Amino acid sequence: MVSAGIVGGTGYTGVELLRLLASHPEVELKVITSRSEDGTAVADMFPNLRGRVDLRFTTPDVGALSECDVVFFATPHGVAMKSAGELLERGVKVIDLGADFRIKDIPLWEKWYGMEHTTPELVAEAVYGLPELNRSGIRDARLIACAGCYPTAVSLGYLPLLEQGLIDLRGMIADCKSGVSGAGRAAKVATLMCEVDSSFKAYAAPGHRHLPEIRQNLSRIAGADVPVTFVPHLIPMIRGIHATLYGTVADRNTDLQALFESRYADEPFVDVMPAGAHPETRSVRGGNMCRIAVHRPQGEDTVVILSVIDNLVKGAAGQAVQTMNIMFGLNETAGIDAITVLP
Amino acid sequence: MVSAGIVGGTGYTGVELLRLLASHPEVELKVITSRSEDGTAVADMFPNLRGRVDLRFTTPDVGALSECDVVFFATPHGVAMKSAGELLERGVKVIDLGADFRIKDIPLWEKWYGMEHTTPELVAEAVYGLPELNRSGIRDARLIACAGCYPTAVSLGYLPLLEQGLIDLRGMIADCKSGVSGAGRAAKVATLMCEVDSSFKAYAAPGHRHLPEIRQNLSRIAGADVPVTFVPHLIPMIRGIHATLYGTVADRNTDLQALFESRYADEPFVDVMPAGAHPETRSVRGGNMCRIAVHRPQGEDTVVILSVIDNLVKGAAGQAVQTMNIMFGLNETAGIDAITVLP
Amino acid sequence: MVSAGIVGGTGYTGVELLRLLASHPEVELKVITSRSEDGTAVADMFPNLRGRVDLRFTTPDVGALSECDVVFFATPHGVAMKSAGELLERGVKVIDLGADFRIKDIPLWEKWYGMEHTTPELVAEAVYGLPELNRSGIRDARLIACAGCYPTAVSLGYLPLLEQGLIDLRGMIADCKSGVSGAGRAAKVATLMCEVDSSFKAYAAPGHRHLPEIRQNLSRIAGADVPVTFVPHLIPMIRGIHATLYGTVADRNTDLQALFESRYADEPFVDVMPAGAHPETRSVRGGNMCRIAVHRPQGEDTVVILSVIDNLVKGAAGQAVQTMNIMFGLNETAGIDAITVLP
Amino acid sequence: MVSAGIVGGTGYTGVELLRLLASHPEVELKVITSRSEDGTAVADMFPNLRGRVDLRFTTPDVGALSECDVVFFATPHGVAMKSAGELLERGVKVIDLGADFRIKDIPLWEKWYGMEHTTPELVAEAVYGLPELNRSGIRDARLIACAGCYPTAVSLGYLPLLEQGLIDLRGMIADCKSGVSGAGRAAKVATLMCEVDSSFKAYAAPGHRHLPEIRQNLSRIAGADVPVTFVPHLIPMIRGIHATLYGTVADRNTDLQALFESRYADEPFVDVMPAGAHPETRSVRGGNMCRIAVHRPQGEDTVVILSVIDNLVKGAAGQAVQTMNIMFGLNETAGIDAITVLP
Repeated sequence: MVSAGIVGGTGYTGVELLRLLASHPEVELKVITSRSEDGTAVADMFPNLRGRVDLRFTTPDVGALSECDVVFFATPHGVAMKSAGELLERGVKVIDLGADFRIKDIPLWEKWYGMEHTTPELVAEAVYGLPELNRSGIRDARLIACAGCYPTAVSLGYLPLLEQGLIDLRGMIADCKSGVSGAGRAAKVATLMCEVDSSFKAYAAPGHRHLPEIRQNLSRIAGADVPVTFVPHLIPMIRGIHATLYGTVADRNTDLQALFESRYADEPFVDVMPAGAHPETRSVRGGNMCRIAVHRPQGEDTVVILSVIDNLVKGAAGQAVQTMNIMFGLNETAGIDAITVLP
Repeated sequence: MVSAGIVGGTGYTGVELLRLLASHPEVELKVITSRSEDGTAVADMFPNLRGRVDLRFTTPDVGALSECDVVFFATPHGVAMKSAGELLERGVKVIDLGADFRIKDIPLWEKWYGMEHTTPELVAEAVYGLPELNRSGIRDARLIACAGCYPTAVSLGYLPLLEQGLIDLRGMIADCKSGVSGAGRAAKVATLMCEVDSSFKAYAAPGHRHLPEIRQNLSRIAGADVPVTFVPHLIPMIRGIHATLYGTVADRNTDLQALFESRYADEPFVDVMPAGAHPETRSVRGGNMCRIAVHRPQGEDTVVILSVIDNLVKGAAGQAVQTMNIMFGLNETAGIDAITVLP
Repeated sequence: MVSAGIVGGTGYTGVELLRLLASHPEVELKVITSRSEDGTAVADMFPNLRGRVDLRFTTPDVGALSECDVVFFATPHGVAMKSAGELLERGVKVIDLGADFRIKDIPLWEKWYGMEHTTPELVAEAVYGLPELNRSGIRDARLIACAGCYPTAVSLGYLPLLEQGLIDLRGMIADCKSGVSGAGRAAKVATLMCEVDSSFKAYAAPGHRHLPEIRQNLSRIAGADVPVTFVPHLIPMIRGIHATLYGTVADRNTDLQALFESRYADEPFVDVMPAGAHPETRSVRGGNMCRIAVHRPQGEDTVVILSVIDNLVKGAAGQAVQTMNIMFGLNETAGIDAITVLP
Repeated sequence: MVSAGIVGGTGYTGVELLRLLASHPEVELKVITSRSEDGTAVADMFPNLRGRVDLRFTTPDVGALSECDVVFFATPHGVAMKSAGELLERGVKVIDLGADFRIKDIPLWEKWYGMEHTTPELVAEAVYGLPELNRSGIRDARLIACAGCYPTAVSLGYLPLLEQGLIDLRGMIADCKSGVSGAGRAAKVATLMCEVDSSFKAYAAPGHRHLPEIRQNLSRIAGADVPVTFVPHLIPMIRGIHATLYGTVADRNTDLQALFESRYADEPFVDVMPAGAHPETRSVRGGNMCRIAVHRPQGEDTVVILSVIDNLVKGAAGQAVQTMNIMFGLNETAGIDAITVLP
């Protein structure tokens, strides 16, 4: 059994991590911290955990956390970078679901996140937590920077084409749509039901924090700078990301369907849909799967990749568990293989 | 007073047209037909019209319709082309909200709509009903082919750039999202609440019937072939279209905000939002406005235009009323100027 | 023209009042105050008002407000009672959409609202703003305490039976359901999209502030104490209240349908649906109508009244405008007679 | 391993049953039939089952079904009664999720379901599938009539009070609300997204088919006729039932909280919430739990019980699996104990 702790368990990624770890056959959940909810029973805050999770939130404490084999940070940026080092020193593995260790270019991170990075040496060490891109690195890592939600959907969609040099690096467009849970559980007018329901909008068109992460990923895969354009939108629903990815194919004769199927044949959490399909976000809701379909409309030069994930699972908590499974030599699908609920 | 008839009033564009015409200060609604609902009181089917519309549906009859000044067709494609000619001969103006007269290239229409066109001479005569593109033509027309919903949002978004030759005609991407009412009121599993709610997907990625209409519009504006890619998506909500339009600017120094504001300064139903804004579909729900914002993310070469309409109003019934107002010399905003409801 | 001011225009009842007054043919909107948004253009906060309302929010100021003929308070309880008196002294009529003047029993008000009432003499003077109950009182009033949303739906539903003594006063149950906008526009976790969408729950079962108001109304109509039970629920949608009202009929032979139709025959904003109907909240969304149906299931002794309103219109802003119309001798339906949008 | 077959797997209860059985540790799914989808791969119709269920739909065939240990009928009423007998004769256990065997009074069933009952002897044999009411009977049964969704929520809510004679049998009101999935997957205008979303209504107020089942259950528990009034409503969401149950307590001094906690202490799928709580339907979405809270508002005589279930799980497929577990001596929670997803 792997003993696990969670720092910052009151947000939506936190409760999702709780759900997955509480039913994981190889994990014992030992500590969950929250400064604001110290003493509250977890099940009082999240009634789906009644009778299943007996823990109470406690104030973050390195001593208690260091008795875990692994600690997950489900915290806003700026938190994990302060505590990860001490835990690593004490032999605890750290998986950060936040953004602190994702961007290798420190000044770039500081520009987008608006604060000084206090532990750049950990950024250098951190392994990017996207198993389909990076499985062997994850296996040997002490510190994981879990991939962000949009970067996961976008990177998995473009990966086969970029690896094979089959897409023009100019003119790539990632038009992405997300459910509201991506905005977190903080009390904000902008994410009230009355502001979001029955409406649709783009946001952060001038620039979103996931842009540098997306570009870093795609450029790493392509081995060249990929100046993709990324525009996120807000869907009036809770969970799910749909990335619609555009580019120009290098060669009209490539069998894109076969390329995608071959690339992901052995991936347990990427499902290439049959030719002509349109994946629905509901088909992955609550699950760790990424479903992808690839189209070349009208047989012209533009390729359109449709990539869907659950932002809280494959885009956050599920991905974190998947990386943990790899790090600890467990079955990679353990605890994240439930069939999703539909409708 | 203009006397008006509606053919096919039981769908969502039909009831929207009813709502607008019933409260239009210059219109008397005289006839509304439905083969399937002959004899049913309109207000029994649509309770929002209780006490406001006394009409009953009647079986379509050219005699009754020809006593109107104008007849609207809110019918599936293939219906208007059979009856429009006879009404025009009797001096009735015809406004088709369907697709019968939109595409000038008859074989192209027949390919996309899967039937023979029986009145190509009416296609030749028909004036395309998008006032911002075509106001003077509408003024003198007998027969209007109202613009489709997606083509309206896309055309208004690209118009200022195409007119001025400020966008590269290659690599244009129209990523569009629509509420479910665009799929109509027919009983289909695919549009059941349980199939659509809390989910998001693309559809018709290989090709959608609005593609040839979009390309016809953009090519006409540009004076050259515009091979735009168009992918529609389904939003889990009832009303609204959000078009996210991409392209490469010809010159980074153009003041795009000023260009759009200037182009639409005198248009009553196009609202260019302030720089940096993200229009929400709810801001136009129930109204005839198209709201547009223009971005150049990160100051790079890609322009992103955000264009929202209500698919049933500016994308259908409201646009039809706007063209009627122009044809009959009425105030262009009459009957379609209510402030929209928010939230 | 009636000149109007609004105190507290940034909430959902505030923006609804803005929408209605801005398009009211007999009203000039002169002042709108908000302490927190002083200087902000109203249309920047509520994009549906772009091009329609030029006002900016200003800090509340009795001087400016006293130049209006009427001032609406769309504020939390405790605000109107501080300023209403001074405005009344200066000859301004006051319509409070909040709860300050609704409950005649001051200690009861203080118990439920948790604060001392500083102007009980105004409570004594205030006329309860439910025109169907109280039209003549409203006509002559200086100060209106607009009916709450739940009390409106419940009172109009029970009114015909209570007036005629046709219902047993024991065992009355008001099971009420409301959209989320009733909870206001404040940033709270409990009304985030992620907390409310795709879920349903009761709230305040032990006791809700509208209970004393409902009991006061029903008891006044009945001329006797009515110990109705009231349980509110939260519907995953924005607008609308559905009251399902139960009681035991005094006499199985009464023609309930005829009773309701007769009672409301002359009411412009109460629509008694045909026998057997089930009113939908969407049929009144954005409108000032209350639609009612009356059932006696299985022909047994229990009567079930279904009563729907839009909580922000007939339950708040529309009712306020209706009372204003009455107070100023305008057409009672002026500005609140738009056909509602469906679907 | 228990081998299982499903008749009628294309509806929402069918796919839910598929999901639960496909991941049940003690079940092998062998046959799934659908007349209309013969030959279609199950996973092509329900993408959440891709990679998890390899079966194809086949035409119903008693021979193939009789090789199963148990056959579930997820069919409209009238189907199971035709085939159940033959399967029982061949030694197959039958669990009917439909209504064919629920009502013991055959003429009453025929009145409500509008057809002749062809196998009344099976009704006599059938055991009602509500384990909390009937566990020992289920253990020994060959034929189960699974409880309906509304009857489950209502019966579990009233059970402790009725068993102890602590509620007045007159004046009981069951005001129930359901998500749309209860209406099934048939193509109907009434359950289109555009008809249901953002609206709320009652339906079947004059009488609903679950009324005789509810009365049969409550009367059986009480040992006397219980003339409860039942009004169902439609919530704009997919899954979940919320029953709000009213009655008059026999004695104000009873500790209702203790009564409920005690009655359900050993029930794995009934969770009595803490005093003062309001269960949310989302807390049971996708799970087999029924959560209940009990209130006595204002300390008066009316008791209010709040009871929530997922209509497709505890109200249908999950309940069926629970009864199967009991019938075959499996762990009662096997295959239906996943933690539900929230938000």
